[in-house]
Amino acid sequence: MTALKHKDQASATPLDQLAERLHVQMDATNATIIDRSKSHIPLISQVAEYLIAAGGKRIRPLLTIAAASLCGNTDGAPRVAAAVEFIHTATLLHDDVVDESAHRRGKPAANKVFGNKSTVLVGDFLFGRAFELMVETNDIRILDILARASRIISEGEVLQMALTGDLDITIDQYRDVIDAKTAALFAAACAAGAIAGGGDQNAADAMRDYGHHLGMAFQMIDDIMDYETASAAMGKDAGDDFREGKLTLPVILALAAADDTERAFWSRTMKDNDQTPDDLAQARKIIAKHNASAAGRAIAQAHATAARKALETLPESRMRGILDELLDFVVTRNH
Amino acid sequence: MTALKHKDQASATPLDQLAERLHVQMDATNATIIDRSKSHIPLISQVAEYLIAAGGKRIRPLLTIAAASLCGNTDGAPRVAAAVEFIHTATLLHDDVVDESAHRRGKPAANKVFGNKSTVLVGDFLFGRAFELMVETNDIRILDILARASRIISEGEVLQMALTGDLDITIDQYRDVIDAKTAALFAAACAAGAIAGGGDQNAADAMRDYGHHLGMAFQMIDDIMDYETASAAMGKDAGDDFREGKLTLPVILALAAADDTERAFWSRTMKDNDQTPDDLAQARKIIAKHNASAAGRAIAQAHATAARKALETLPESRMRGILDELLDFVVTRNH
Repeated sequence: MTALKHKDQASATPLDQLAERLHVQMDATNATIIDRSKSHIPLISQVAEYLIAAGGKRIRPLLTIAAASLCGNTDGAPRVAAAVEFIHTATLLHDDVVDESAHRRGKPAANKVFGNKSTVLVGDFLFGRAFELMVETNDIRILDILARASRIISEGEVLQMALTGDLDITIDQYRDVIDAKTAALFAAACAAGAIAGGGDQNAADAMRDYGHHLGMAFQMIDDIMDYETASAAMGKDAGDDFREGKLTLPVILALAAADDTERAFWSRTMKDNDQTPDDLAQARKIIAKHNASAAGRAIAQAHATAARKALETLPESRMRGILDELLDFVVTRNH
Repeated sequence: MTALKHKDQASATPLDQLAERLHVQMDATNATIIDRSKSHIPLISQVAEYLIAAGGKRIRPLLTIAAASLCGNTDGAPRVAAAVEFIHTATLLHDDVVDESAHRRGKPAANKVFGNKSTVLVGDFLFGRAFELMVETNDIRILDILARASRIISEGEVLQMALTGDLDITIDQYRDVIDAKTAALFAAACAAGAIAGGGDQNAADAMRDYGHHLGMAFQMIDDIMDYETASAAMGKDAGDDFREGKLTLPVILALAAADDTERAFWSRTMKDNDQTPDDLAQARKIIAKHNASAAGRAIAQAHATAARKALETLPESRMRGILDELLDFVVTRNH
C-alpha cells in the first residue's frame, strides 16, 4: 500500500487517510494476500502475483477494515479483507477473459500474458482461497454475506453481457447491472467488516447500505470517466466501454436526449459494433453536448447522499468522518 | 435420476442400487439442483439447465447421501449433495472453456452453444450457489471441506495444463493431477456427507479415504477408456485426451515400455501436437501391444483395495456392502 507516512495530512485523500490510519491492518491484509496467493503449482502463484502485484486501489479491503474499526475491533478483519480482495481479483481475471481486455491496472491483462486457460483457472483458485479464508473466521454470517455477493456478481456480469449493444436499456436496468457487478461486493465488504469487528445487525445493515451506495456512485463515476480520461490515468484502456458496446450511464443519458443523427451514430457504433478510429471522440462530443457527464455525476451524488444517511446512524468518530469524506472524493474524482 | 424401481435387483449396478435405495433423498437433491440453478437472469438459468438437464451419472451426490446414510441421518444431505454437484458442474463448464471441448454428456459442450463468456460466468454463478447452499447447512466443517476441495480442483487443472505434452511426466505427477482434479471432490463429497449425517471425525476420515481412492480408480479407468471406447458410450468424445496432448495412465505406461519408433510417435503426436487422422488408431495399437490398459486397471484395482480397507473400519450394513460393490463396478466398467 502507498500509505503516506511522510505526506501532508491536509492534502491526503480519504483513501490515503484510511490507508494511513489502518496501515497495521492493511499490512496484515497484504501479507495474507501475498501468502495465500501462493500455490505449490508455480504457474498459479505466477498469475496470481502478476495481478496482485499490480496493486489497484485496495478500496474494498480498506472498507472492510474501516467497517471493523468503526465497530470496535479489527483483530479478525485482515483475513476477511483478504478474502474480499481475492473475490474481486478472481472477478477481474474472469472479466478480462470475458471482455478480451487488453489492459488492467496499467499492465497488459493477465489473459494476454498467460492465456485464457490459466486466467480462468487461477480465478477459480482465488475464489477457493477466498472461501478457505472465510472458513478460518469460523463465522458463518461472513460466509453468508460473501457467498451471496459472489453469486450476485456473476449474475451482474451476465446481465451486462445480455444488455450489450441494447440501445433500449433503461436506467433501472443499468442500475441492476452495476448493483450486481460492483455495489454488491462493496456492500458485502462493509457488512462483513462490521460483523468481523463485532458489530450488531444494525451496524452491519448500516454499513451494507453505505457500501451499496458508495459502490453505485463509484461505478457510475468510473463509467463517466471512461469517456473523459486518458488511459494512463485509469490503469485500464479509456474508451473500453464504448469499444465493447457496453451501454453505461453517460451514453444512456445522451441517448435519452439524442436527435435522429445521434441515435443513428449510437446504433452504428454500439449496436452494430461498426466503429471508426474517430468515433470515440465523436461519442465524447455528443456526451458533452448533452451535459450527460454532469447529469450522471448528479445521479452518483444522490447515491453518495444516501450512503451518508446510512453512515449517520452509526456513532460519530474520526473514522466515520473519513468514510463520509470518501463519498465526496469518489463522486468528484476525475482519475 | 434413473432409479430402477421395476428392474430386477440382481442385474442392478451398485449405482442403480444406490439410486433406488436413496431415491427420496436424490429426488430432494435434484429438486434443489433444479431450483437453485435458476436465476432472475434468464441466460443463466438457460446455460445451467442445459448442462444439468444432460444429467451425467450424479455419482458425487449419490456418494454424499450414501455417506450420510451410513452415518445414520440423511436429513441434511440433499443440500450438501446439491452443493457438491454444483461445484462439479461449475468445474465442467470451466473445463470445457479451457479444453475447447466439443462434447460433454453426449451433447455439444456449453461453450460451443452459448459461447465462452456465458460459460465462464455461469460456472462462477454455480460456485456461488454451491457456497450459498453450504452456508444453509450452518456447519462450518462442511464449508471447510468443500472450500478446500474447490481450490485443489483448480490447482489440479492448472497442473494438468502445465504437464500437457510433457513426455517426461512421471506416474507420481499423473497421480497428483488426478488426485487434485478428481479424487479431491470424491473425497470431499464423502467426508461432507458423513459430517452432514452426524458422523464423527473417524467416520468422516474413513469416508474421505474411501472417496479419495474411489476417485483415483474412477479417473484412471476413465483415462484408460478414452483409448478404448466409442464416443457415444462415453458421452464425451473418445480420444479427447490424445488430441489434447494430455499424458494419462495408458500412455505413461506405454511410454515406459516404448522403443525409439514408438517414442518418436508419442513425441510427434502428443508433444509436437502433429497428428494425422490415423494416429489415434495407432496409439491404441501401441497401448494394446504393451498391455498398458491391463496394467493401468491393476493400478486402479490397488486404489479400490485401499478404498475397501477404509470402508471396513465402518460398521457393517447393506449400504456399506453396496459401496464396496461400487469399487469393483468402477474398476471393471468399460463404458
